[in-house]
Amino acid sequence: MAIQHRVSVTVRKKRRPGRVKSPYINECLGAMGVRATVYVRSQLPSSSGLGSSAAVTVATLCAINDEFQKGLTREEVAQRAFEIEKKVQKGRASATDTFVSSFGGVVLIQGTEKRRLPPVNLPIVVGNSRVSHNTSLMVEKVGRDQERHPGIVNPILDSIGAITREALLQFQDLRALGTLMNTNHALLDALGVGHPALTRLVLAARSAGAFGAKTTGAGGGGCMIALAPGKVRGRVAGAMRSCDAQAFMTMLDIEGARKEQHE
Amino acid sequence: MAIQHRVSVTVRKKRRPGRVKSPYINECLGAMGVRATVYVRSQLPSSSGLGSSAAVTVATLCAINDEFQKGLTREEVAQRAFEIEKKVQKGRASATDTFVSSFGGVVLIQGTEKRRLPPVNLPIVVGNSRVSHNTSLMVEKVGRDQERHPGIVNPILDSIGAITREALLQFQDLRALGTLMNTNHALLDALGVGHPALTRLVLAARSAGAFGAKTTGAGGGGCMIALAPGKVRGRVAGAMRSCDAQAFMTMLDIEGARKEQHE
Repeated sequence: MAIQHRVSVTVRKKRRPGRVKSPYINECLGAMGVRATVYVRSQLPSSSGLGSSAAVTVATLCAINDEFQKGLTREEVAQRAFEIEKKVQKGRASATDTFVSSFGGVVLIQGTEKRRLPPVNLPIVVGNSRVSHNTSLMVEKVGRDQERHPGIVNPILDSIGAITREALLQFQDLRALGTLMNTNHALLDALGVGHPALTRLVLAARSAGAFGAKTTGAGGGGCMIALAPGKVRGRVAGAMRSCDAQAFMTMLDIEGARKEQHE
Repeated sequence: MAIQHRVSVTVRKKRRPGRVKSPYINECLGAMGVRATVYVRSQLPSSSGLGSSAAVTVATLCAINDEFQKGLTREEVAQRAFEIEKKVQKGRASATDTFVSSFGGVVLIQGTEKRRLPPVNLPIVVGNSRVSHNTSLMVEKVGRDQERHPGIVNPILDSIGAITREALLQFQDLRALGTLMNTNHALLDALGVGHPALTRLVLAARSAGAFGAKTTGAGGGGCMIALAPGKVRGRVAGAMRSCDAQAFMTMLDIEGARKEQHE
C-alpha cells in the first residue's frame, strides 16, 4: 500500500548537469535518454524498508516525463520504474513498491496478476528502528535457510501467504487486521528476518493500544508499522519514541504520483 | 526433558488423615486405595509451564508405592501418573511430563511411541514471568484458531514439528539447538500462545549471550527457558531478573524419581 508521506522530485533540462549520486536517478536519466538536474526532497527515511527507492524512481521518471514531454502513461512509468529497481537491486525488486508509488492505493501482486483493493481508512504509525539492514542479505538468508531446512521454512512461507489472503477478506476490520499483523510479525521473526529492536517496537506499540504491529520491508532492521485506532496513534508513536525510534503517523494514499507546481 | 530441580514428597500411613487440597494428590491416594498424610516440598514454581503437577503426581505415587509396599514398577508409576494428570486436567495432559518425571532424561513421545535420547550436557536458565496462565485456555484457543484459519495455523504446527525433528539431529550442537529454539519461540508467538513478558525475557536472554531461548509449557504466561554457555548463565539469569522475572539455573536430570532417606 501507498502512504501519504511523499518524495518530491524536480527535474530541469540542463546541457551539462553535475554528477548524480543516486544510482536510481542515474538509471532514470539514462533510460529516458535525457540530461537534467534533479532535486529530491523526501519525507521518507531511506534504506528503511518503506520503499523510498521506488518512490524516488517513480517521481523522477514522472518529472522527466513532464519536463521533456515524453508522453509516458502512468502504467509505463510504473513498468519502467520496476525495471530500474530490478537493475539497480540486481534482480531483487518488488513490483508492488513501484506500482503503488505510481498509482497509490493498495494492490496485491501475484506473478503478473495485479489486484487493486478498495481504499479504506488505515491509520498507521511507522516506527524506524534506525538499525541499518540489507535487503539482499535478508533475501539470500531466507533462500539459504529454505534450501537447508525446507520442512521448517516452507510451511512458514505458506502461513504468511494464507495471512495475506485472509487479510484481503478482513480488510475493513481493523481489529482482525491487527491480529493478522501480529501473527505475521512473529512468522517474519521465525524466518530470521526480525530484529530485537523491531520486536521491542512492536511490543511497545501493542501495549500502547495498537490493533497490531509488524516489521515492514525486508526486515533485519529498518521500519515496523502499527495499525492503531485514531485516538491512540499519538500514544503509540510516543511509545515507539521512548524505545529510541523515529516515529510518524500516516495514512493510506490513494493518489499516487502527482504533478505539483512550485513558484 | 527432566531438569534437576525437584519435588520431594513424604507419605506416612494414617488412619484419619486431614483433608488434602491438591487434586493431584487426592487422585493418587484414591487410585492407590490408601489413607495417608502427604508432605510436599517443591523447588519448582507451580502453574508455570514446568510440569510441576506431573512431578508432584509421580513423586506422590512413588512415595505411596514405597510406604505401602505396593510393588509398582516405574513404568506403572509413569502410566498411572499420566492417567491421573489426564483426569484432573480433563483430558489435556502431556505424557512427556509424567514420563520424564519418572525416568529422567530426554524423551520424544509421538502417539504411543516413546524414543529416549542420549543424555547431553544442557546448561539451562529458567525464567518465570510470574504471569499466570491457563493450559486449557491456551490449548482451546489454538484448537479454535485451527478450525477458523487452517491455512494459517496448520503450516505453523507443521513447521514446529519439523523443528522438533531437526533438533533431534542437532542435539549435541548447542548453538544450532539455540537457533531452533529461537525459531520455535517465534512460531509459538505466531500461534498466539506467547506473552509480551515472555518475549521480553527471551530478548533479554539472547542479548545476554544465550544460544537461544523460548517459551516452555503451554505459553500465554509462565516460564521460558534459555540455553546458554556455562560461563554466561549467571549473566543470562541476571538479565531475566532485571525484567522482573524469577530465574534459576538448572541442568538435564538423568535420574528421574528416586527414594531419599530422611532422619
